[in-house]
Amino acid sequence: MKVAVDAMGGDNAPEMVVQGAVEAASEWGIDVTLVGDKNVIIEKLGSRYSTDHISVHHCEEVVRMDEAPLKGVRRKKDASIRVAFGLVRRGEVDAVVSAGNSGASVAAGVLTLGRMEGVERPAIASIFPGERGNVVLIDVGANVDCRPAHLFQFGVMAHAFASSCLGMESPKIGLLSIGEEGSKGNEQVRLARELFEESQFDFVGNVEGRDIFTGDVEIIVCDGFVGNVALKMSEGMAQAITKLLRRESMSSLLGRTALLLGRRAFKSIERKLDYEEYGGAPLLGINGVGIICHGGSSNRAIKNAVKLAAQYADSGVLDKMVVQLNKYKDFMV
Amino acid sequence: MKVAVDAMGGDNAPEMVVQGAVEAASEWGIDVTLVGDKNVIIEKLGSRYSTDHISVHHCEEVVRMDEAPLKGVRRKKDASIRVAFGLVRRGEVDAVVSAGNSGASVAAGVLTLGRMEGVERPAIASIFPGERGNVVLIDVGANVDCRPAHLFQFGVMAHAFASSCLGMESPKIGLLSIGEEGSKGNEQVRLARELFEESQFDFVGNVEGRDIFTGDVEIIVCDGFVGNVALKMSEGMAQAITKLLRRESMSSLLGRTALLLGRRAFKSIERKLDYEEYGGAPLLGINGVGIICHGGSSNRAIKNAVKLAAQYADSGVLDKMVVQLNKYKDFMV
Repeated sequence: MKVAVDAMGGDNAPEMVVQGAVEAASEWGIDVTLVGDKNVIIEKLGSRYSTDHISVHHCEEVVRMDEAPLKGVRRKKDASIRVAFGLVRRGEVDAVVSAGNSGASVAAGVLTLGRMEGVERPAIASIFPGERGNVVLIDVGANVDCRPAHLFQFGVMAHAFASSCLGMESPKIGLLSIGEEGSKGNEQVRLARELFEESQFDFVGNVEGRDIFTGDVEIIVCDGFVGNVALKMSEGMAQAITKLLRRESMSSLLGRTALLLGRRAFKSIERKLDYEEYGGAPLLGINGVGIICHGGSSNRAIKNAVKLAAQYADSGVLDKMVVQLNKYKDFMV
Repeated sequence: MKVAVDAMGGDNAPEMVVQGAVEAASEWGIDVTLVGDKNVIIEKLGSRYSTDHISVHHCEEVVRMDEAPLKGVRRKKDASIRVAFGLVRRGEVDAVVSAGNSGASVAAGVLTLGRMEGVERPAIASIFPGERGNVVLIDVGANVDCRPAHLFQFGVMAHAFASSCLGMESPKIGLLSIGEEGSKGNEQVRLARELFEESQFDFVGNVEGRDIFTGDVEIIVCDGFVGNVALKMSEGMAQAITKLLRRESMSSLLGRTALLLGRRAFKSIERKLDYEEYGGAPLLGINGVGIICHGGSSNRAIKNAVKLAAQYADSGVLDKMVVQLNKYKDFMV
């Protein structure tokens, strides 16, 4: 498997991105192509430039984090994210990883590789660490105003991804709403519920915000507005709690001793709360593999995202997804 | 101040509800009227029945937690939540606290006391513990499909409440969205933004999910669907982290020692994560004071909610809210 990494994308690019890509290459032998300004990348690589599994693909431009995504991608033909997806289209690599402007990643993926047959709205699937196993939340930001049929299609795509790439056997699907009863939720959710009920999926009905952390329902479907609020909220809460934990512990001698003795447990919690453990979020519904990482990704996040990209590309899930989407094409009226 | 407490409402009613009400009465001298089945309540009260500040108002019915709210309230004329709001209407008490079916509380409040002049949609304001101070999130579940003008009105009501009852001086208002730029968000949010920009509030524009935990923006406005997902999600995450913290600590001798030494810090974190610290959420936009508590409220949550109810009733904020709503009535077209 060969993964193109957008070396210029992200708040910590290119340093941390290059670092993470190199770690993935050396730890798992994944071939990595760093896409971006050749001189800058080679400087960051230093002596690792001639390492096995690492190559560089030069391009001149980058879509900045604060740039209007679609405009940026359209105007900058030589932007790293566009060039990276171009490598997938030409069959030179199998997947793309980017921590850059996530709107630009979605736009570049869709424009360069095209939507899968029958897909109206590609969507971003984020993997949350649930108490009893991972939970896939889809969509976390690619689409704001969705129709019920879009929500249904998010479920179809996430089901194929989760069963093929995350080792989930017949994952259960739930619709994110504000009460378990079918009569609850907004109109969009009530209508989407009818579609899921007609399908052959193991559909549990409505779930609530708290279910994102239990792992009882493996796939949770929502529109990109709600999903993005939920994603950002969990990040914010994790940060706030980590800070609180440190501050409370440091405020007394006993607390400081406790922190010292319990540092292994503490580290383990910090890691669990940390999105970096899970690398990035796949963009589902395009003709190829794209993993979208948090703008503030560390080398560890990039490393794990490269691994996820390789697994995704290797899984053959794209073909299965097409079959499933076709099976339910009558639902998309 | 006299507060009617729905003694029959909630998963832990009547025990914990009666207990919390008694604690509020004895600790702060707030007059409490317990509304519900007289025999049951008196039995739970035991020797505390004849205590100062405690009275009982008998009624026969209760809207169950799983009952359709509006139907329940309409059919059951002698339901505790309806009777409680009836006491406010007749001027016998100043406020209502209920941990029962929250949809029924909203319906009973609106039907019994009526909407404030000019208010189309009463909304529930939840108080979150931000890092640098409390954050009011409105609406957390009273309304699902909202128009932009409704969101604006939520902001007006929360501003009056926060400045009068929570001691916030000229609180800043933000719109919950999925990116800080004005172009981001769904249509509803983009249009609501224009209304806030025309107003005299200290409006900071769009905020994201993570801002709910910082306290930098004191009032965050969203529709009840998004807000309820956010509320439930934060509860779920707090529970998951508390469990994780315990499990990780207990898995090693060092961790157990750390937990023992750090128990004060640990308790403080648990409390901080716990919604009970903040009692309940005010229902804003009705002609009176109603505090809606979590169904699983403990005595501590009820006690704090009774205090909040008394403060709210005592603050004169209802009059100020009417003035503010009137000032912006042209925004409600």
